Amino acid sequence: MRNILIIGAGRSASCLIRYLLSKTKSENIFITIGDISLESAQRFIKGHANTKGILLNVSNKEQREEAVKNCDIVISMLPARFHIEVAKDCIKFGKNLVTASYINDEMQALDVEAKEKGLVFMNEIGVDPGIDHMSAMQVIDRIKDKGGKLLLFESFTGGLVAPESDDNLWNYKFTWNPRNVVLAGQGGAAEFIQEGKYKYIPYNRLFRRTEIIKIDGFGKFEVYANRNSLKYRSVYGLEDILTLYRGTIRRVGFSKAWNIFVQLGMTDDSYTIPDSENLTYREFVNLFLPYSPNDSVKLKLRHNLKIDQDDLMWEKLEELDVFNNKKTIDIKDATPAKALQKILMDKWTLKEDDKDMIVMYHKFGYELDGEKYRIDSNMVILGEDQVHTAMSKTVGLPVAIASLKILNKEITTPGVQRPLNKEVYEPILKELETYGVYFTEKKLKYLGYNPNNVGG
Amino acid sequence: MRNILIIGAGRSASCLIRYLLSKTKSENIFITIGDISLESAQRFIKGHANTKGILLNVSNKEQREEAVKNCDIVISMLPARFHIEVAKDCIKFGKNLVTASYINDEMQALDVEAKEKGLVFMNEIGVDPGIDHMSAMQVIDRIKDKGGKLLLFESFTGGLVAPESDDNLWNYKFTWNPRNVVLAGQGGAAEFIQEGKYKYIPYNRLFRRTEIIKIDGFGKFEVYANRNSLKYRSVYGLEDILTLYRGTIRRVGFSKAWNIFVQLGMTDDSYTIPDSENLTYREFVNLFLPYSPNDSVKLKLRHNLKIDQDDLMWEKLEELDVFNNKKTIDIKDATPAKALQKILMDKWTLKEDDKDMIVMYHKFGYELDGEKYRIDSNMVILGEDQVHTAMSKTVGLPVAIASLKILNKEITTPGVQRPLNKEVYEPILKELETYGVYFTEKKLKYLGYNPNNVGG
Repeated sequence: MRNILIIGAGRSASCLIRYLLSKTKSENIFITIGDISLESAQRFIKGHANTKGILLNVSNKEQREEAVKNCDIVISMLPARFHIEVAKDCIKFGKNLVTASYINDEMQALDVEAKEKGLVFMNEIGVDPGIDHMSAMQVIDRIKDKGGKLLLFESFTGGLVAPESDDNLWNYKFTWNPRNVVLAGQGGAAEFIQEGKYKYIPYNRLFRRTEIIKIDGFGKFEVYANRNSLKYRSVYGLEDILTLYRGTIRRVGFSKAWNIFVQLGMTDDSYTIPDSENLTYREFVNLFLPYSPNDSVKLKLRHNLKIDQDDLMWEKLEELDVFNNKKTIDIKDATPAKALQKILMDKWTLKEDDKDMIVMYHKFGYELDGEKYRIDSNMVILGEDQVHTAMSKTVGLPVAIASLKILNKEITTPGVQRPLNKEVYEPILKELETYGVYFTEKKLKYLGYNPNNVGG
Repeated sequence: MRNILIIGAGRSASCLIRYLLSKTKSENIFITIGDISLESAQRFIKGHANTKGILLNVSNKEQREEAVKNCDIVISMLPARFHIEVAKDCIKFGKNLVTASYINDEMQALDVEAKEKGLVFMNEIGVDPGIDHMSAMQVIDRIKDKGGKLLLFESFTGGLVAPESDDNLWNYKFTWNPRNVVLAGQGGAAEFIQEGKYKYIPYNRLFRRTEIIKIDGFGKFEVYANRNSLKYRSVYGLEDILTLYRGTIRRVGFSKAWNIFVQLGMTDDSYTIPDSENLTYREFVNLFLPYSPNDSVKLKLRHNLKIDQDDLMWEKLEELDVFNNKKTIDIKDATPAKALQKILMDKWTLKEDDKDMIVMYHKFGYELDGEKYRIDSNMVILGEDQVHTAMSKTVGLPVAIASLKILNKEITTPGVQRPLNKEVYEPILKELETYGVYFTEKKLKYLGYNPNNVGG
């Protein structure tokens, strides 16, 4: 019997655990789930054989080493900053490791040792990063294998609310970490390349330079640019590509309204507001508007941002109840971002029966035998319920499948890595299909950005 | 004979040195000017008795200590980051120190030692900071001494081009450090208080929330908010004041046009542009606009920022030649801010006969014996020529006057300090008047922001 150690039994672990539980007999595995809360560690495994939940505080060296020593592979579902100590234990005790997080410098630094010991340290194998890497590389490799040359690659992902639960004007609810949604796009200009020209979008313009995509059966979406698309040139082996652009998917109209918060300064997380706990929502809005004894907060906001009286953005604001003068922020020393998050969570928290949705969309432009082609490829995954969400499914399944394949020595190339190689992505994408996680491809006429090669 | 050591003979030292040279006989002083360039050290003193210029590299401990040891008072006109080593030498050898820079934590930390040794470490005694402190405190103390209660204090300063040299559409040329002008307002929201309400303006709105002031004989100006007005509550002893707001003065219309650069992201100093040295001005602008093969850079910019065809902002852009497709940035690894500075310096550098202008404007609102009053106070100083600029005069004269008064033991309170006490500001402001540096006061009806005490 082989032992799998899963560290962290949070929301995104449900489908990962369900998958592995279904394999305990056929694969002859024993699953140990460690969490800082024993209740959380045990909640997904009640009544199952070959499993146990244990108390595991990763900051406790003894507990951590004891757990790592006694398993054959470690899956860390902890927040990214906690992986490194676990990774060092894996080096020490010669264990393979799987995470869904971005590789940081500390993790990368373990590459040499992992290779020396023949260990697979597979990272970025959730949904984004994860399924985006695998599905993109599959098409890119296929084009390259035929002798094609990539001209354009665009890739978009979004965590949204499922159509059946989509009942607010923003067409949005929090399905991922709300704080990350409020802070999205901050920290520097979005950088990308279009037709060989570098392009930069500052934060204050980010939500006004969206593009529209359409998915059959699901309608239109909009995309705003992610911060750094350019690093994917080297990651994906697309050094000479003319257009490379990554973005985040929202329903059409979200960004234009979100831009109100950006323009007013409500997403700022760099300073705290005096007496924030007692501030009403309306007083919070008024912090960002000029003082005037005679004008209402509503009119000042309309005038400052030049919002027409019949603009739907306004209804979106009203829906969030931001002008309420009774509800208070209730958070001590809140930054504007934290106060805004509080207001949004009143309205954008998933209800008990609400379901989420993950949408991913790639565009590939390429040249083959003197002709230009375009492939669009998309994936839409709906959540089953509040536990088995689309997020949990798309993050957890690739992690689970990869872990089992590493355990079974179907994936063996050692080192700190992403799922970019055929050896890895082919079998995983194939098995994901049987769980309903697959991409729909369309061949389109290639237009690119510049069909006539006009300079611009 | 007493010895005065001046370290740093840059542009802002000319009037300081001229003042002290005029006093060598009557005050029996010898002036040593140290600079990293011997030529600079000597340029202002040719033919004068009781002076010498020496080579002084402040990073050279021996040179520095030798110079400090042999003088009676040190004036440091170096960039702020270089003061601290000089200040430590002053502690070591028991010398007084004068600078025109903001007190930072390192300087503040010397307060106890300076007091123990009975040394005056006078800082922030240029124009801004400097004359602003003194002129504000004089009126504030006068109001308080009468038993008045301050309700409102607003204070604005600007370095501009003199009306006779004002020949561009922006009504602006670089009279201070161009880099600071390009980066002005970055690093966090502007925070202030109006009628007891906290107000925040994010960088992207800073140049759209200006207010207008008028000065007899000079016309209208506009003001945008400085980053942190709130710290002046404790500095000026205005803890309970309802309105406190500091700002920077420009000619009307500057900010609205400057906002184009802010909105496009051209003032960003956080990343470098590939191949920036070969970029033309037009290509630089195009970095911040969506790719389009068929639309011109000009039309894309007009459309993106919704600039009407007859908006004067547009003429301002054209005047800067930002759409020129021949002129290149010529700076390797330029950030957007550095590239923009290059473009601006083509047009905004002072010509040989150009003169500068310093404008300062304070508003005081107060209550006395149940009545409300308002005092407006302003100062306009014009430069004499490119050497004896308004900037050099307003920075250098208070430094020089203070230094002599410390040397003559007219200012004696020891410690690291700003010129906030009557003992300091009264005699200095009085002498400044004889050099044409004075404020014009006006008594106005008090309106404040909220004449009828309506909530807003």
